[in-house]
Amino acid sequence: MPEPFATELAVLKEKLLIMAGHAETSVNQAVKAMIRRDDDMARRTREEDDVIDTLEVEVDDIALRLLERQPNAFDIRFITVAMKIANNLERVGDEATTISRRVMVLSQEPQLPQATEVPTMAALGVEMLKDALDAFVHRDPVKARSVIPRDAAVDVLNRRLHGELTALMSQRSSSINRCLNLMVICKSLERIADHATNVAEEVVFLYEGRDIRHLDSSQIAASPVSPASHKT
Amino acid sequence: MPEPFATELAVLKEKLLIMAGHAETSVNQAVKAMIRRDDDMARRTREEDDVIDTLEVEVDDIALRLLERQPNAFDIRFITVAMKIANNLERVGDEATTISRRVMVLSQEPQLPQATEVPTMAALGVEMLKDALDAFVHRDPVKARSVIPRDAAVDVLNRRLHGELTALMSQRSSSINRCLNLMVICKSLERIADHATNVAEEVVFLYEGRDIRHLDSSQIAASPVSPASHKT
Repeated sequence: MPEPFATELAVLKEKLLIMAGHAETSVNQAVKAMIRRDDDMARRTREEDDVIDTLEVEVDDIALRLLERQPNAFDIRFITVAMKIANNLERVGDEATTISRRVMVLSQEPQLPQATEVPTMAALGVEMLKDALDAFVHRDPVKARSVIPRDAAVDVLNRRLHGELTALMSQRSSSINRCLNLMVICKSLERIADHATNVAEEVVFLYEGRDIRHLDSSQIAASPVSPASHKT
Repeated sequence: MPEPFATELAVLKEKLLIMAGHAETSVNQAVKAMIRRDDDMARRTREEDDVIDTLEVEVDDIALRLLERQPNAFDIRFITVAMKIANNLERVGDEATTISRRVMVLSQEPQLPQATEVPTMAALGVEMLKDALDAFVHRDPVKARSVIPRDAAVDVLNRRLHGELTALMSQRSSSINRCLNLMVICKSLERIADHATNVAEEVVFLYEGRDIRHLDSSQIAASPVSPASHKT
């Protein structure tokens, strides 16, 4: 006999939270590995990514089974949003893997001064991700909306570091490879913040029923918070 | 009275194909703009991207309405796969926009010799995307499978150009900005091929019922083609 619908739905949510935990760990681990110049730690990011990949497949599998059980309109939205969040978390895991690969190349040469800014950038992205997931769990679209404008700070930081690294490359051609690797790391962190933004937008859609993807910030701010249209 | 289910499903498919057409156009246009050094053409890529974004929202909207109509297991898979394909096409549009932005910067300075290889890379990715969509329309998982290994050729081309551009930066610091912009374009094209691969994997899942994401090539080849489990 299949589990009751509500139990299966709870399993879906639980898997997603476990996935989010691994995604955060993978980013934190990759960045810590860079600062500590610890290749073993960087390699462990890869293992986290494997776990995240498996969880994505499991989330999709549960989601499809739930959709076969004729859920109501809100639950359908919940389930499809869960699939989209899982996809974003999987991509966060991929970015963490990219970072850890570059970390292992960078650890062969002296650290660039710009590397010290990387943990700040990572912390901003991970906090955004945490808050977006928190908004998902606590049915809090206001909190989800508050995540979205924070993406700009990460973009600014990335652009500044990109500018500094470009200047450094012109001054010292011996630093070119290191600068390129550090640029990739910064870009990956910027993408992680993008994924957190995507998750936040999905959470707003889930609880407000309004699709705010592809709107500019004034349109997002102006969009009315509709009465919660969820039935469960 | 709502449209018959089959009619709505056909609309979903149609929207997805229109979206794919715009995604292809946007990539082709961005690359052509680079070769012709035509900023107006590069700017038009942005308009394509707006169309693609709107179509993604429409696809998701139709998909959710269809899921409310208690579809069978195959149709549920079809609808969720359609949403995932739409998301990949939207990201292709984003990459084309990234390319066109860099094209407008590059057009200010003499062209680098490596730029002549960009159309080849773009053509590979666009062909992969076309074939994956074709496999989706014609229920052809064998064709979808044939798309996946072609991603490697794009990766190889990207790595080679990256290496050449890195060498060039060391030799001539005046070329650094151009090299960085061209690297971003190549990376975007490599991602477009990744999205085509994602679409192909979704099509295999749809028609074979087997999730081949995150498997290595030997596992993908070994996976049995199950009897088509679709009921419509």
